[in-house]
Amino acid sequence: MSDPFVIVGGDAAGLSAASKFTRESPEGDVIVFEKGKWVSYAHCGTPYYVKGTVDRLTDLLSLSPEKAAERGIDLRRNHEVVSVDTDGETVTVETAGETVTQSYSDLLVATGAHALTGPIPGARLDGAFTMHGLDSAAAVRAALSDPGESTVDTNIEYVDTALVEKYADWGTPERVAIIGGGYVGVEMAEAFRAHEAETHLFQRSGTLVPPFGEMVGERVTDHLRTQGVNLHLNTAVEELVGDDRERVTAVAHDGGTTDVDLALVGIGIRPNTALVEDTPVEFGDSGAIAVDEYGATTVDGVYAAGDCAEASHAVTGEPDWVPLGLTANRVGRAIGQTVAGEPSPVGDIAGTAVVKAFDLECGRVGLLDHDKARDAGFDPVSETVTARSRSGYYPGGDDTDVTLVADRKSGRLLGGAVVGEDRAAIRIDTLATAIEANMTVDELERLDLAYAPPFSPVWDPVLVAAKVLNSHLD
Amino acid sequence: MSDPFVIVGGDAAGLSAASKFTRESPEGDVIVFEKGKWVSYAHCGTPYYVKGTVDRLTDLLSLSPEKAAERGIDLRRNHEVVSVDTDGETVTVETAGETVTQSYSDLLVATGAHALTGPIPGARLDGAFTMHGLDSAAAVRAALSDPGESTVDTNIEYVDTALVEKYADWGTPERVAIIGGGYVGVEMAEAFRAHEAETHLFQRSGTLVPPFGEMVGERVTDHLRTQGVNLHLNTAVEELVGDDRERVTAVAHDGGTTDVDLALVGIGIRPNTALVEDTPVEFGDSGAIAVDEYGATTVDGVYAAGDCAEASHAVTGEPDWVPLGLTANRVGRAIGQTVAGEPSPVGDIAGTAVVKAFDLECGRVGLLDHDKARDAGFDPVSETVTARSRSGYYPGGDDTDVTLVADRKSGRLLGGAVVGEDRAAIRIDTLATAIEANMTVDELERLDLAYAPPFSPVWDPVLVAAKVLNSHLD
Repeated sequence: MSDPFVIVGGDAAGLSAASKFTRESPEGDVIVFEKGKWVSYAHCGTPYYVKGTVDRLTDLLSLSPEKAAERGIDLRRNHEVVSVDTDGETVTVETAGETVTQSYSDLLVATGAHALTGPIPGARLDGAFTMHGLDSAAAVRAALSDPGESTVDTNIEYVDTALVEKYADWGTPERVAIIGGGYVGVEMAEAFRAHEAETHLFQRSGTLVPPFGEMVGERVTDHLRTQGVNLHLNTAVEELVGDDRERVTAVAHDGGTTDVDLALVGIGIRPNTALVEDTPVEFGDSGAIAVDEYGATTVDGVYAAGDCAEASHAVTGEPDWVPLGLTANRVGRAIGQTVAGEPSPVGDIAGTAVVKAFDLECGRVGLLDHDKARDAGFDPVSETVTARSRSGYYPGGDDTDVTLVADRKSGRLLGGAVVGEDRAAIRIDTLATAIEANMTVDELERLDLAYAPPFSPVWDPVLVAAKVLNSHLD
Repeated sequence: MSDPFVIVGGDAAGLSAASKFTRESPEGDVIVFEKGKWVSYAHCGTPYYVKGTVDRLTDLLSLSPEKAAERGIDLRRNHEVVSVDTDGETVTVETAGETVTQSYSDLLVATGAHALTGPIPGARLDGAFTMHGLDSAAAVRAALSDPGESTVDTNIEYVDTALVEKYADWGTPERVAIIGGGYVGVEMAEAFRAHEAETHLFQRSGTLVPPFGEMVGERVTDHLRTQGVNLHLNTAVEELVGDDRERVTAVAHDGGTTDVDLALVGIGIRPNTALVEDTPVEFGDSGAIAVDEYGATTVDGVYAAGDCAEASHAVTGEPDWVPLGLTANRVGRAIGQTVAGEPSPVGDIAGTAVVKAFDLECGRVGLLDHDKARDAGFDPVSETVTARSRSGYYPGGDDTDVTLVADRKSGRLLGGAVVGEDRAAIRIDTLATAIEANMTVDELERLDLAYAPPFSPVWDPVLVAAKVLNSHLD
């Protein structure tokens, strides 16, 4: 019998690869090693679990261990792969005090990413969290809920019961701090406000959700203020201050000290690459694992997918690191198919992202930053317009701001952002599709998009933006 | 002084052309002849005025005569162009009993379309309407409103006051008939039900909104039934029956007779082409005016735009007649620019359309009908999937049905339809963009579309459909 396909990491990328592999190659063997107990859960749903929009933690699981088994996947939780020997084609696995060696035919590194806390002293105090994993989500919700109100089912084997119970007894926090104004920070502000906590959000720069550009950032800033979030922009957090019981009590920052009962650190994530750092597997400039169009690393038979790997950017054609859920699923699936014997390109990324900020929907795609566009050899020109989301006479519409970035000479669409309260986020898909098709702004302007008063004005905001930008390209 | 740019028709196409022309060529002269008194109004908004979602009839005007004058447009209402002499480059205009001749440098025929009533005897009885024009919308709403409740401002000069007052005294109809189950029929069913009228909808075929395909049609059928609409499918209406005062009292059909107090005929529209029928201007197979990529007819200096003209279909590359609002605006605008001296292609159409059917959102694009696809030289294959509009654990989502049609050999995406209650319609724009970019289903499947739990699942329903269809193309 040949060696199995070995996958390190039981989340989106790893289990997508395993599922596709078993479907395409029912006779093939696949083993997934997952160091933790949770598998295949929806990271992006955790703020909504904390908020209470999602009832049960287990609702966030997309593929249970039982379901994985039904699919013929040999999923081994609490198994940590501690080293890889790419010459011998083996991995070393630790579980329950034992160390075993497993040889592989093909190897997929799908080790994900971890939340940064590094620069902030005190980030490991009690009451300080990162939002990366279901256990911390369960703990934060337990802290926010009134005693006895928690809906975490501590009987299911996955939950870190001790942690949840500790925070259930924590006492409902009246004041909370969020360190970092990216996706997680903005989503968690909504969650904390839903629990009526006084919410302080600290952002080092002057712009929230920076990847979405200034236009979106400004509108999110205004909107969060109307939702009662205390914004501390251009404010560097120096440390989280604890009491003598090592419980967080305050945030010390360059504008003073703010007393809090709970703190959430969301200052970014980094790829988990330690496992292959001592192997010939090469890394890209981003620090994530370099891969080719099939998701293969520089070492034969070794693939990488998900938040630990790079991907090719549709606009620049260069490797980039944009760790998001769809990419992990898509790339994992393609690698599963390739390993099963049918080579399948993993596709590229356009940097498409959407985020909900209370009632505001934000979307972004491609290259928005002019410096990055220039680095990629373009001569960027951009325009921002405000247009209604529906026909002016039809109720329920909202001002929708659209930014488009194009290359001055070729007219090629390079990037875009959309923000508004009425179906703004989903409009980014039009731009993502146009960008992946290498459309020019002129072609975008002529698109035959949908029009009906309840859904869109005659000229969709995206078309209005294209018209205006195009008039500057002529 | 040179002759002016003459435009026949003061609606979307005509006034878009005039506006763009005056902006690009401020020194140029443009005259718009409009035979009626209304100009530039939102056809698509009339059902929502009848329903009551839109308060005032004048809310539906996109460009008032006063605003047109400010833009430097010589807009002459109640001026009917009755003939065109393409050799002499003149038009003959009748107004207030006078007949005048106007020479032109360029001519735009933007005469629109008219609602069909032809095959149905009795369609001109009192209480029988088509929904094509603001006067009939005002009359229907007046009939549906309680006495004294009508919000039509009969002081504004546009309204046919006599007609509105007649129907204000009509007596609130308890039972209404809709003849035709296309866009207008479905939208008007929603309007009538909002006024709590017993609503009977008669459709000759077994499918509602036929251009959207069977999948959408079936879901609309089910949904209209849950909304209390009495559907008479596969039912041919023979005549509208009147009483001795020539008031509609019943619908006679091949299933019997249904008593009604009001009837709306929405069985389609035809292009208004009579004006150029005796000229060398040529027509396409559709019966609408044939045009080239600049909207020019077969006669030098004569253009056509809007519901009276054909357009080039993005999938077939052949002329087609798809009378919709965005096309009228876009083509009119391009012709205005061309006539101003900067030749501008009008773009093609993808047949994109969306319609709201009560709570259901429907979209369609491209070629859905297999026979039409075969006629265009393709070997069509299609798949329909049902997928959630949001992450399963996030509330507010709905089952979203997606049909995709592709060419078996090339894999090229030919058409698509989307239906559901949660942001389904706007998703058609992704498919419209992909179709205009000549994407294959394989490319569609790899699109980097937006994902965030409140807006979309990891795999957008469009991507799910692409995955399934693609697996049948391999």
